[in-house]
Amino acid sequence: MGIVVTKMSSLFVRTLREDPAEAEVASHKLLLRAGYIRRSAPGIYTWLPLGLRVLGKIEAIVREEMERIGAQEVHFPALLPREPYEASNRWSDYGPNLFRLKDRRGNDFLLAPTHEEMFTLLVKDLCSSYKDLPLALFQIQTKYRDEARPRAGLIRGREFIMKDAYSFDIDDDALALSYETQRGAYERVFARLGLEVVIVSAMSGAMGGSRSEEFLHPSPIGEDTFVRSPGGYAANTEAVTTPVPDSVDASGAPAAREFPTPGTATIETLVAFANEHHPREDRQWTAADTLKNVVVALVQPDGTRELLVVGVPGDREVDMKRLEAAVTPAEPAAATEEDFKRHPELVAGYIGPGVLGPNGAPRDEDGTGGAVRYLLDPRVVDGTAWITGANQADTHVFGLVKGRDFEADGVIEAAEVRAGDPAPDGSGPLELARGIELGHVFQLGRLYAEALGLTVLDENGKSRVVTMGSYGIGVTRALAAVAESTHDDAGLAWPVQVAPFHVHVIATGKEAEVFEAAAAIASDLEGRGIEVLYDDRPKVSAGVKFADAELLGVPYTLVVGRGLATGVVELRERASGERGEVPVEGAAAQVAERVTAALAAAREL
Amino acid sequence: MGIVVTKMSSLFVRTLREDPAEAEVASHKLLLRAGYIRRSAPGIYTWLPLGLRVLGKIEAIVREEMERIGAQEVHFPALLPREPYEASNRWSDYGPNLFRLKDRRGNDFLLAPTHEEMFTLLVKDLCSSYKDLPLALFQIQTKYRDEARPRAGLIRGREFIMKDAYSFDIDDDALALSYETQRGAYERVFARLGLEVVIVSAMSGAMGGSRSEEFLHPSPIGEDTFVRSPGGYAANTEAVTTPVPDSVDASGAPAAREFPTPGTATIETLVAFANEHHPREDRQWTAADTLKNVVVALVQPDGTRELLVVGVPGDREVDMKRLEAAVTPAEPAAATEEDFKRHPELVAGYIGPGVLGPNGAPRDEDGTGGAVRYLLDPRVVDGTAWITGANQADTHVFGLVKGRDFEADGVIEAAEVRAGDPAPDGSGPLELARGIELGHVFQLGRLYAEALGLTVLDENGKSRVVTMGSYGIGVTRALAAVAESTHDDAGLAWPVQVAPFHVHVIATGKEAEVFEAAAAIASDLEGRGIEVLYDDRPKVSAGVKFADAELLGVPYTLVVGRGLATGVVELRERASGERGEVPVEGAAAQVAERVTAALAAAREL
Repeated sequence: MGIVVTKMSSLFVRTLREDPAEAEVASHKLLLRAGYIRRSAPGIYTWLPLGLRVLGKIEAIVREEMERIGAQEVHFPALLPREPYEASNRWSDYGPNLFRLKDRRGNDFLLAPTHEEMFTLLVKDLCSSYKDLPLALFQIQTKYRDEARPRAGLIRGREFIMKDAYSFDIDDDALALSYETQRGAYERVFARLGLEVVIVSAMSGAMGGSRSEEFLHPSPIGEDTFVRSPGGYAANTEAVTTPVPDSVDASGAPAAREFPTPGTATIETLVAFANEHHPREDRQWTAADTLKNVVVALVQPDGTRELLVVGVPGDREVDMKRLEAAVTPAEPAAATEEDFKRHPELVAGYIGPGVLGPNGAPRDEDGTGGAVRYLLDPRVVDGTAWITGANQADTHVFGLVKGRDFEADGVIEAAEVRAGDPAPDGSGPLELARGIELGHVFQLGRLYAEALGLTVLDENGKSRVVTMGSYGIGVTRALAAVAESTHDDAGLAWPVQVAPFHVHVIATGKEAEVFEAAAAIASDLEGRGIEVLYDDRPKVSAGVKFADAELLGVPYTLVVGRGLATGVVELRERASGERGEVPVEGAAAQVAERVTAALAAAREL
Repeated sequence: MGIVVTKMSSLFVRTLREDPAEAEVASHKLLLRAGYIRRSAPGIYTWLPLGLRVLGKIEAIVREEMERIGAQEVHFPALLPREPYEASNRWSDYGPNLFRLKDRRGNDFLLAPTHEEMFTLLVKDLCSSYKDLPLALFQIQTKYRDEARPRAGLIRGREFIMKDAYSFDIDDDALALSYETQRGAYERVFARLGLEVVIVSAMSGAMGGSRSEEFLHPSPIGEDTFVRSPGGYAANTEAVTTPVPDSVDASGAPAAREFPTPGTATIETLVAFANEHHPREDRQWTAADTLKNVVVALVQPDGTRELLVVGVPGDREVDMKRLEAAVTPAEPAAATEEDFKRHPELVAGYIGPGVLGPNGAPRDEDGTGGAVRYLLDPRVVDGTAWITGANQADTHVFGLVKGRDFEADGVIEAAEVRAGDPAPDGSGPLELARGIELGHVFQLGRLYAEALGLTVLDENGKSRVVTMGSYGIGVTRALAAVAESTHDDAGLAWPVQVAPFHVHVIATGKEAEVFEAAAAIASDLEGRGIEVLYDDRPKVSAGVKFADAELLGVPYTLVVGRGLATGVVELRERASGERGEVPVEGAAAQVAERVTAALAAAREL
């Protein structure tokens, strides 16, 4: 094949001047406006040529770093039979997030959200000895999740591309090593993509397992909130544990007393009422003196619904994401009027421990029936005294002491984490930030291997259950994160290693010489292995071409125009906005050198 | 990254000595046995590292040839909303072959079998002027078809990879040109894959359209039957048209007469009976003198079922695939006892035109009710006289003349095509062969553009409906065809351009020097850009290694072993079985040169 330069006049792209109504975040708007993607259905996108080029480069970087650590590439179907997911319980645990379907014979299938089960079965099929381990496999593959709320374009879609990898080891030490190796590869992947990441401790979600970390890209549009301490603690808020205060000696505490508290269904009105009618001597009552009992409904994967009351100090809200992580695979939902009707003992605004958990109506032997389940924030330790609901309208109880006057069914980490809260490891006060989850590494352990019977013979001929790690990167999400973190008001601004083209050559004006010179430079660059987009459109103004170039975000632009008369072309760097003149003679060589150096630098990170 | 040689000791592969029970054809057996693929569900496969490498190379060849003709790559989702397929009628026309599902909100989705609708809508979205045309787009993407009978491994699967391309043109002449360009690219693709293909005229199937050709790879395991004539005619049997004989002057023909013909429910018994009891004077009766009326049920995509009787000369069978192509999108099925019960006028074994079509009970104004629909083979022309059923048991009518004594509702191409039949273009007698359909090019025309409103403004500012072409290659099927056409009894035997590795280096024996020399040659080869699989397994016999190498099918094998003592290694060529000695010194250089030359030759085809 001869040298073919991509020309703007025939490139399948149409740039839009206006922000599409459907898009909320910058990367989504710009990827649509610049003609990189198009929406096919909510959370489902089509890749246009420019987008596909960027995607291919990101996939290549991920693949290289996987191969560098010896992981071997395989490829699983997206359409999978139900049985393996039944064995691992995920067929039901995934609930409505799973796309399910039947084939013409009525057999159940799913569109895989991840492939733990299939990898486990494949390794079981091929490996039988400790000599086959350690083993690391990966795939770059299309995944499906029927998200309730697809959002932000590629950030949270329903059909998306993931790199998922799995490690297989004979014992925990070997797993720890595999985990570290993958973690290192992840650091290199994100460094090469030019993406800042914070590695935070995480929950392992519906998947079970032990050590688990997320690679979050700090961004105000991120869906994940994470915390950091000056001493180096970092965690997803879902994973933050609350330092438990020592219990309090309540032997001298006065007995609890009920008071009428008319019109105090909120913490704010309650605190004001308490300070007015039952003032403390030492200080004012604050919200932190109240125990707020929040009713939520839990929907189990099989659809059954039960109520749960979460007791938290009144100065904190329940964080729905922390709650969700704590109760998974159940999903929390708002309690409805219907729910309250079925539990007349719950008097909205005045709910107290008296009717909840062990304090309330006794349960049947199997744990069903009786009082609504009651879980407390870890701060509500034995001996602490609270103002809380008395379970009748307009009435509260003061000085209700945990351990003396009431108990709960257990503890739950569901209260919001706030800036300034102490880090659980004592490394100082926490600060909060938002991030986009780009990667997740975790030690699955033996859950799947046990469920699906993956064992190997060890050195002594004894059967051993294999221990696994699971490692994911959201490839399409990473693309959006790069766009998000590099764009400016004028458009996209790709780093050279993932840009759809390296150099955007623009011919301005009407003279034939300009177009000839521009075409020659473009060909010269392609001949040097540089990927060029040449804007050859004859009747389009320089202004429109410049605006398109800024929107498309190719890192270097070469403007061929009036300068030709004095033997120069203009080189613009998209990200920095720097401009400078370059002699036409040798322009291709000079720019090629610059691109090559930038590519090499991005690879050497 | 330093040079990394893939080692057999750590490669994720397990070869099987026995043929898997599930596999029928050689390619399927060998791809399973050699560890290239694994079955995940009927017609759904997982790609192991070796298979994925071959697949990647085939995709790269397809991509290069598409890009060479200026087609631009895009990528559509597999999960698509119902609406566009509703507009084109394919939501229902595809019947049970379509995987359908609902999302959590109850919206209908499908797993796309092809993407005509989406391409049409995308071009409608991006293009508005004749200046945007001609345009060619393609994707290499995972497709879904819920096949009733998945078979032969990758030959007919339910999840498979296709390259689908579409051309968009302003008028028929431009479409013809686009079609020729794509057709040329297809010839190059298959030549580069080393696959013999015959280009045959084809029906356009459920898709509509005009000119249509298939690229068939001749193979006894092929599902398609095609015909060729000495004069160059070639067609899929579904597309063969029957030369229609001239009508016959029946003015002097005797009147038709009914005879009792006890026990003659088959053509064979009928002909024997006729010759015995009603002999002709000029010659014996033959099956060709009888008119056989075959009852089939047609199932429409919406599930409705109606009967159809096909009348063919008694010496020919009805070809179900030709029938299917003729009645698509309806699907033919065998008539059941139930069907016959509902039509007591159909006396099995003695069915004749008297109760069929226009000769039978009159229909309602809307064409429903009344006699069963009756279609005739084109050979049954006006004036021809037949022995056929008299619609009562043990009775036939002799000398029933078409046009005088009976009529039909129309003509159908459903009779079998036989070797020796005349080509429709007069180019001589047909011969029959079987083939695997690897590609399909056809002129869709304006069907989709009209259904979905794809128009552009022409040079005069007038709105014009765009005309389209559709071009598909079964990528995973092509891989199976290469395996099928190149294997031998010992295993796979890949051509170098698609082989998973170029050279298989085998260390035999136990001496450390052998392994050192083999490793050095392997590294040397990799350093020269040659892809090496190095069998470094220490305790595996030479015999097992040789058998594995033959099974895996890498084109060149370098055996490092006893020859080292005299300074030579053995070079084996997998396909030809040729063996020769090569001096260790310079072995890598020599082999690299040979591989490079072979690769260049395969590229220059």
